Amino acid sequence: MIKTLRRTPLLTMGDGRFLKVEAHEVEFADGCVVPDWGWVESPAFVNIVPVTTSGRLLCFRQEKYAVDGLTLAPPGGYLEPGEEPLLAARRELLEETGYVAANWYALGSYVVDGNRGNGVAHFFLATGAVWQQPIHADDLEVQKLLLLSREDVMQALAAGEFKVLPWAACVALALLHPAFAAATLAANSH
Amino acid sequence: MIKTLRRTPLLTMGDGRFLKVEAHEVEFADGCVVPDWGWVESPAFVNIVPVTTSGRLLCFRQEKYAVDGLTLAPPGGYLEPGEEPLLAARRELLEETGYVAANWYALGSYVVDGNRGNGVAHFFLATGAVWQQPIHADDLEVQKLLLLSREDVMQALAAGEFKVLPWAACVALALLHPAFAAATLAANSH
Repeated sequence: MIKTLRRTPLLTMGDGRFLKVEAHEVEFADGCVVPDWGWVESPAFVNIVPVTTSGRLLCFRQEKYAVDGLTLAPPGGYLEPGEEPLLAARRELLEETGYVAANWYALGSYVVDGNRGNGVAHFFLATGAVWQQPIHADDLEVQKLLLLSREDVMQALAAGEFKVLPWAACVALALLHPAFAAATLAANSH
Repeated sequence: MIKTLRRTPLLTMGDGRFLKVEAHEVEFADGCVVPDWGWVESPAFVNIVPVTTSGRLLCFRQEKYAVDGLTLAPPGGYLEPGEEPLLAARRELLEETGYVAANWYALGSYVVDGNRGNGVAHFFLATGAVWQQPIHADDLEVQKLLLLSREDVMQALAAGEFKVLPWAACVALALLHPAFAAATLAANSH
């Protein structure tokens, strides 16, 4: 079993909400002790793959600081302190797209970095999405909302157009979920 | 367009190979300037989904520092300085599993954190994998090598047994690739 023997704070950016770094003293199963294992604390976040009642996937084409050029992006954002992932997902979907969704499916929760932590991703598929209100986004990057067909999404994913790891992961996991096929195929038959 | 106006080193863990933190002064498209945007430098890495000539997926059940309990994990590891991703993938597959693979398919390259960087993931599907030599792994965690059927993998992924984001992402992207179905279905017909 891997044991954390000690945690030492090394760095706090601003108020520490988005980034803190610690050194951990870690003992591995074979007895080996690493005295200065780097550990990154950053907030948990959600991403949502929303499918409208017309069988279209809602996503953005936008800039993102760590990305060259434009990228496709599903809605998402950081959890507020103490917020449940599903509530954060519903809030971000509404704030970023103006849509609400009838059916929610959890696609899992994943630590971002297996060695250094760096937050947890919570992914959701949301089907039966309908427009409710204008957008109230607080993001720094310019976002353009798109409505993509299932084929568009599969092609864009294979072409690497979702350039950020959690976004590609969330879309891939959604495409593998039975409810995604049902939501897009049912709509295509109309 | 998003511009980086200045980069200030804040923290270097050890020799800096695995973790460095910088403050960036960033100007966004609307002219808003953020003076202390946190940025994490960590090495690029590869993950590989290898499928044997018998149509089985090779993966590990193992501990990982950031994970509670055990997790499933595809082979993978950090790039050596200057190493090409595909060469790193071939090297890690051989070192960690003792297998070599006939056919390699790129599943994309993704920045881990859209805001803070934290390295780049390069994913591969490798089919026609055959055993060549004993394992020479240098990992700190105890690993057990498994041979999973396509159905096993789909169930394990849906059940959240790949607990680390890049691992779930790489497996999901592999499952969506036409060569994965071909490699597992052809083998199942024997």
